[in-house]
Amino acid sequence: MNTESFFPKNIKAALQNNPPGDWIPSVPAKAIRLHSGYPAPHLVPSKDLKEAVAQLLEEENDLPLHYIGSPRIDKLKEWVRLRQEVRGMVAKDDELLITAGACQAIDLIARIFLDKDAVVIVESPTYMEALEIFQNYTEQIITVPVDKDGLQTGQLAELLAERKQKGLTMPSFLYTIPTFHNPTGTTMTEERRGQVLKLAEEYDFLVLEDDAYGELGFKENPKTLKSMDTKDRVLYVGSLSKVVAPGMRIGWVHATERFIQALFWFKKDLEHPFAQATMATLLENTDFTSRLQTLSESYQRKCQVMLAALEKSLPENASWFVPKGGYFVWVKITGVDTEKLLSKATEGGVSFLPGKYFFLDQAEGAEYLRLSFSYESEENIEEGIQVLGDVVQSFLR
Amino acid sequence: MNTESFFPKNIKAALQNNPPGDWIPSVPAKAIRLHSGYPAPHLVPSKDLKEAVAQLLEEENDLPLHYIGSPRIDKLKEWVRLRQEVRGMVAKDDELLITAGACQAIDLIARIFLDKDAVVIVESPTYMEALEIFQNYTEQIITVPVDKDGLQTGQLAELLAERKQKGLTMPSFLYTIPTFHNPTGTTMTEERRGQVLKLAEEYDFLVLEDDAYGELGFKENPKTLKSMDTKDRVLYVGSLSKVVAPGMRIGWVHATERFIQALFWFKKDLEHPFAQATMATLLENTDFTSRLQTLSESYQRKCQVMLAALEKSLPENASWFVPKGGYFVWVKITGVDTEKLLSKATEGGVSFLPGKYFFLDQAEGAEYLRLSFSYESEENIEEGIQVLGDVVQSFLR
Repeated sequence: MNTESFFPKNIKAALQNNPPGDWIPSVPAKAIRLHSGYPAPHLVPSKDLKEAVAQLLEEENDLPLHYIGSPRIDKLKEWVRLRQEVRGMVAKDDELLITAGACQAIDLIARIFLDKDAVVIVESPTYMEALEIFQNYTEQIITVPVDKDGLQTGQLAELLAERKQKGLTMPSFLYTIPTFHNPTGTTMTEERRGQVLKLAEEYDFLVLEDDAYGELGFKENPKTLKSMDTKDRVLYVGSLSKVVAPGMRIGWVHATERFIQALFWFKKDLEHPFAQATMATLLENTDFTSRLQTLSESYQRKCQVMLAALEKSLPENASWFVPKGGYFVWVKITGVDTEKLLSKATEGGVSFLPGKYFFLDQAEGAEYLRLSFSYESEENIEEGIQVLGDVVQSFLR
Repeated sequence: MNTESFFPKNIKAALQNNPPGDWIPSVPAKAIRLHSGYPAPHLVPSKDLKEAVAQLLEEENDLPLHYIGSPRIDKLKEWVRLRQEVRGMVAKDDELLITAGACQAIDLIARIFLDKDAVVIVESPTYMEALEIFQNYTEQIITVPVDKDGLQTGQLAELLAERKQKGLTMPSFLYTIPTFHNPTGTTMTEERRGQVLKLAEEYDFLVLEDDAYGELGFKENPKTLKSMDTKDRVLYVGSLSKVVAPGMRIGWVHATERFIQALFWFKKDLEHPFAQATMATLLENTDFTSRLQTLSESYQRKCQVMLAALEKSLPENASWFVPKGGYFVWVKITGVDTEKLLSKATEGGVSFLPGKYFFLDQAEGAEYLRLSFSYESEENIEEGIQVLGDVVQSFLR
């Protein structure tokens, strides 16, 4: 049997890319993990979840364990609707779809808008999982660079004008993480947000706004693109992974009714009644505003510790953006190949993610690395950055 | 904004089909539910699940709530591997993929093998969710009828020979539910199973074996196609939905390594750590053989009650297959449009699924209906069938 002969052309093409999860480093158990985009262990509400499950199953018995039946599935959606409203995004019930995290949401959006002839625009660098997803659908991925103020909308405008003029296929959508960007930690200015929406209208494309970190501002959370969107062009993707727990796999899409209908058409995992009802029960018992406050304070302290340690331990040729929220610090070390650096660093007992995985053209990421301050304790962050500094110094020698 | 202009051609075509879940009837809360393919409430281990979650989170704290980290995720896969082995299907670790139920597995298989030019063969009638899934990928769906001995392999052979002779596109795969079939309750004979595998080899197609009900035999469970498959042509799909709880969304694929790799490539919900680790914990504490015994005895009794009630209450022009396992009785009532019958039946207080939803050409299903004996109590089944009998009688008058 010739296994390859069974794959259609587009699948064969996708299978030529780097395999999924290629970027996950092999890290010794004892290493200080600065590569993981995980919430801090003590901020994951495992005790509350245990109690939520007990309450749910005592109150509802078998209901949340069937395909349909738990009233809490609707309650989760209502919680999401209210949360969107608090943030200036008014959704009707049929403008929301609960998904298995942000990734499934991004995959479904790619599924309904992309085929091999479609064009998608991404930020450079961008979230590696999203890159993997888009590469499963099309080879026509175009990048626009990010600076300290987010996506460079001037370059986006030029690129669009040029494609239009040349008669090239115009993009189906732009994928952006405007707030506390992964991996750079930067935030798009309000002016640029306005430009993105204006360009979307002018060149008739959609905007996929990934807001996984959007409520994790140290001081404040910027207005979302969706809240500024008067033309229904934004497909907003939210997630509870970074503010509750990624292992529960709860995210959502807020978009115009017809798009939600189409996304649901292709969502064939038949929901996740137990996970959704458990999350609804947890949220019933959670003061979410106060939870966000706790997360914000804790991550801000961790970030400050990391930035101070970077100042102290990294050489002159290293630079980074100062984040105003989120999970990440994006570091450039001129003259250092961060992939080679990683093996030395893990030997020394600290991990990070090499920049290459966040770029379509991986060579562009050679001198960058992503550090996450979310997972480890302040002590470990300090120690980890010191080890990293030593490894960089010895690497430069 | 013209929403439709954003959909590629194949998505536009798929959106022309009946919407997903179109078949779910609107049933009064008090009705006796003979439409639901749900396990019996008292057989869903909600108390054990509550304890499993408590144990899991006490032992592992935040581990199962991150993306990766719980050792029980590997343990679930190992449980599945051993279960396959018990049933004569030897899998290596990289020949298994855990999925969000059988439906996600079927969707992923369709995703990697079907495009608009591909041909898929299904049984007629067949599982309505699978039909919906395949229609999302191709319009070239070919049906082969089922009789009391399962898929009519003679007709399959003729169809294949004819396509070959005419130079038509040959099928990528055959989708079959050989054991305790949904909706007919029939089981494919061993001889026919051999023929399916022989034809797959002769005409170079794959076999998607959906075995969701395969361990729910009243007396015994037939050999799976996968256990007879010496050529790696079978993609076996298993599920814990019918033997533990559908709301947990745990299924799997057992297939040759290259296909598992390709399925994983397109599975973008990033696993379900909490659900998988919870299920692993539950299964650690479950005597599965004894559980299957309990399920089999209970469903056999319910089935017998349903069959006796059908004999008693349904008129001469009604006939059905006698199932040897599973959840369903498939009834034909000559001269009755079962979709019209349904609204009378739900008014009377009983529900079923009209046959039309299980056929590609819905007109073929007009005189059929699917009854599920799994969910309701023996008393309710008896009463429900009596009501159904009355409704049929009044309908015929």
